[in-house]
Amino acid sequence: MHAQEELYSQYKNSMQKLADVKYAAAVLQWDQETYLPKKGADFRGRQLATLSEVAHGMFTDDKNGKLLQELLLKDLSQEQKRNVELTWEDYSRQKKLTPAFVRKMSEAVSASFFAWVEARKQNDYQVFEPKLSLLVDLKRQEAERYGYEAHPYDALMDEYEKGATVKMVDKIFEDVKVPLRQLLQEVQDVQSGDDSFLRQFYPKQQQWKWGIYLAKQLGFDFESGRQDISEHPFTTNFSSQDVRITTRVDEHDFANMTWSTIHEVGHALYEQGLPAEQYGLPLGEYASLSMHESQSRLWENCVGRATAFWNYYYPKLVEFFPVQFKSISENQFLKAINKVQPSLIRTEADELTYHSHVMVRYELEKRLIEGSLQVKEIPLYWNDQYKTLLGVDVPDDKRGCLQDVHWSHGSFGYFATYSLGSFYAAQLWQQAKKDIAGLEIEIAKEGRTDSLLGWLRTNVHKHGRFYESEALCNLVTGKNLDSTVFVSYLREKLNNLQ
Amino acid sequence: MHAQEELYSQYKNSMQKLADVKYAAAVLQWDQETYLPKKGADFRGRQLATLSEVAHGMFTDDKNGKLLQELLLKDLSQEQKRNVELTWEDYSRQKKLTPAFVRKMSEAVSASFFAWVEARKQNDYQVFEPKLSLLVDLKRQEAERYGYEAHPYDALMDEYEKGATVKMVDKIFEDVKVPLRQLLQEVQDVQSGDDSFLRQFYPKQQQWKWGIYLAKQLGFDFESGRQDISEHPFTTNFSSQDVRITTRVDEHDFANMTWSTIHEVGHALYEQGLPAEQYGLPLGEYASLSMHESQSRLWENCVGRATAFWNYYYPKLVEFFPVQFKSISENQFLKAINKVQPSLIRTEADELTYHSHVMVRYELEKRLIEGSLQVKEIPLYWNDQYKTLLGVDVPDDKRGCLQDVHWSHGSFGYFATYSLGSFYAAQLWQQAKKDIAGLEIEIAKEGRTDSLLGWLRTNVHKHGRFYESEALCNLVTGKNLDSTVFVSYLREKLNNLQ
Repeated sequence: MHAQEELYSQYKNSMQKLADVKYAAAVLQWDQETYLPKKGADFRGRQLATLSEVAHGMFTDDKNGKLLQELLLKDLSQEQKRNVELTWEDYSRQKKLTPAFVRKMSEAVSASFFAWVEARKQNDYQVFEPKLSLLVDLKRQEAERYGYEAHPYDALMDEYEKGATVKMVDKIFEDVKVPLRQLLQEVQDVQSGDDSFLRQFYPKQQQWKWGIYLAKQLGFDFESGRQDISEHPFTTNFSSQDVRITTRVDEHDFANMTWSTIHEVGHALYEQGLPAEQYGLPLGEYASLSMHESQSRLWENCVGRATAFWNYYYPKLVEFFPVQFKSISENQFLKAINKVQPSLIRTEADELTYHSHVMVRYELEKRLIEGSLQVKEIPLYWNDQYKTLLGVDVPDDKRGCLQDVHWSHGSFGYFATYSLGSFYAAQLWQQAKKDIAGLEIEIAKEGRTDSLLGWLRTNVHKHGRFYESEALCNLVTGKNLDSTVFVSYLREKLNNLQ
Repeated sequence: MHAQEELYSQYKNSMQKLADVKYAAAVLQWDQETYLPKKGADFRGRQLATLSEVAHGMFTDDKNGKLLQELLLKDLSQEQKRNVELTWEDYSRQKKLTPAFVRKMSEAVSASFFAWVEARKQNDYQVFEPKLSLLVDLKRQEAERYGYEAHPYDALMDEYEKGATVKMVDKIFEDVKVPLRQLLQEVQDVQSGDDSFLRQFYPKQQQWKWGIYLAKQLGFDFESGRQDISEHPFTTNFSSQDVRITTRVDEHDFANMTWSTIHEVGHALYEQGLPAEQYGLPLGEYASLSMHESQSRLWENCVGRATAFWNYYYPKLVEFFPVQFKSISENQFLKAINKVQPSLIRTEADELTYHSHVMVRYELEKRLIEGSLQVKEIPLYWNDQYKTLLGVDVPDDKRGCLQDVHWSHGSFGYFATYSLGSFYAAQLWQQAKKDIAGLEIEIAKEGRTDSLLGWLRTNVHKHGRFYESEALCNLVTGKNLDSTVFVSYLREKLNNLQ
């Protein structure tokens, strides 16, 4: 073999073994949230910590650094070059952490996760607080280790959305706040209709079947994945051939399972569409979390709450739940599932007020990490901000600051990507409708979304991590991130429903 | 800390991290046999191979060798000393394999497993043969690497049953063959009764509930474990706090799920009873495979097919399946579940002819490994031996040489432990009845098996790997392995049922 190819192949081999260990950890995490027996938690925590430590050790081995530096000087193909560059960035970042720190973080995360589950069970934030407090300390240390220019929170956001800064995100949220408030006002003035039928009794088994049916219809490949039940819905993967989604079923809330399933399917289609031959390399990974979220939000909202979609699927839904929907018209249903109403739970929020949920978390985390808010003050701050931004009274911790799994996973700096992703989704959706003639008609008449999936595969999925979010958005839509597209999309949709 | 304690603590720490990686691999294997989507198989294979390689590398690191040698010279406590000795034995054995060989073996095992599943689906040995052939080559190489005195198969049996040799096992089987043949003759002459009611329709869901009920009743802790469905029932564990059993359900065979569940529960109770504080160390592990099997066979047969057990449980069973058992008396049921009848499937065989199934496999493997039988000759040899030893005609590969998962796992040298385990079980059961006054009455009147479990915990489980099988048997029963105890136990039981 040519010396350069030999080097690249060494690099690939070492990255793929690293991926094996990381994906093994992901299997253990998936199991932890789906099937792990209660008393198995402690040993699982240490098993995950060891895998983190082993993976970190494998990656940050000086031999890898040397190999990467050599490869950076070679005349590689464009794809190879990009893989090596991105790996070098990741390597340099990981080098800033010690194996002991990585292990400590992983242990703190596992302990936090179980404390969070228990706290939710007892509906008591106090049960979670000590573990969360330890974790926030570690995240603050992590930010210092990574380093940052303007704000420690930048260092953490960078993990999920490369280059994202407080300055940038503050500006985006500032820009969109007023238009969203105006739109809320407009809609609430004219909105009518009752959505209480969504809270009838929907038997678990039937909801489960409906979810599986929807996932299949949308193109989720059950030979390359599965769906299970967990406390908080999520998507994970152990290769592009093994992508797993989870959901939760509330028998008195039809919306919960249905749109969480479509949402996770959106994530999963992205993972199933990543190039399998790039297993373990950056180009086999998603572009960024906001781009990931653009996929889930596009399917959940632009597709899954649209008139076209339910033109085809509403009759199917009635077949699944003939009693519950017998006297409900398609239009009533559409109004109900798009009802704008400030509420308590992020994952169940409408498309509009959703962003206020995100902003509360973003501000809160920023303050926690900069040290201007203490962990013990979280419930008070949370409840106060929900009153201010959403006008709702938080009745208890479970429906308040205990609702999301993210902190218990040590994911700080993640939430903003939910809003960015929604904004990207609107831009991608606008472009897809331009590029695919008759897209909405296909959906409405035949329930076919394969053209859309094909378009996303070609324009987004196949690139893996080659482009950063904004570059990719620009490549596909000719424009940078632009939240006004989202606001227009939503205004048009909500007006048409009145 | 004292220098010696410091050293021991280093050793413990390093062994526990190794255990974390091995248990992670066990989670991936469990998932592979229960929930893995079809197309995920290839990447899962390489993930497992990497974990094997990483674990092997961690263990055989020269630093561990040096540490162990230092510790061997120290004045440790009895338990510490035994841990170090056993680890040194394992280390010396593992040192004989290279990381590349370990990886290759793991890859071959994964490929074989999926080939076996597919071959069973197609009921065609040819589908399995090429992968099995590769695996047998590797196992023969492994035997050479480990080394042996008399027979290459000794080197493989040693993995499962330390010190077991062809010479020893040949002798045991030779001794028991004639008495078993005589007993079979006696029983078949007097045996009466119809067992066809066991092959009525038993709905899956109801069988599942019955299995969970039984497992709970026998003391399986569902907070430290779970039950799932797989192609071939097995028990695995990721700590003594996370022990998982699997079963399969045949709606037209009541016996299949019921006794496989009791069997796996027997294994699981052993694992749940191992000392959690010895996690990762030899004393936290089971004594040997034959001792493991003694636990499963004791519960399955000595307890789970006995009159006393069904005195209490038969009325419960009738509540679960009122239609199916409505006109069947307890005595008819007992005769049916103990019916001796040469048959095709090992896991469904009666207690007596079971050992002929084992002997076929033992002889076959011995010949494969010594090279006097070729992989392509397996079906012919198998079918011929079933005719000779059991008098049955094998109709197809699924009910013939494809019935067991073991070879696809690379487990050669394993089967003999099933018979040894059954013989140990009879000895332990005899002793337990002596030691626990009124044991059978407790079981018959109240369905209580907690005294028995407590006795096993104290006499077997808590010792972990401290004693080898025969030494443990001697400690508990005052005697070495003695298959005549098994023959007497079985003769008495079968005679009483006539």
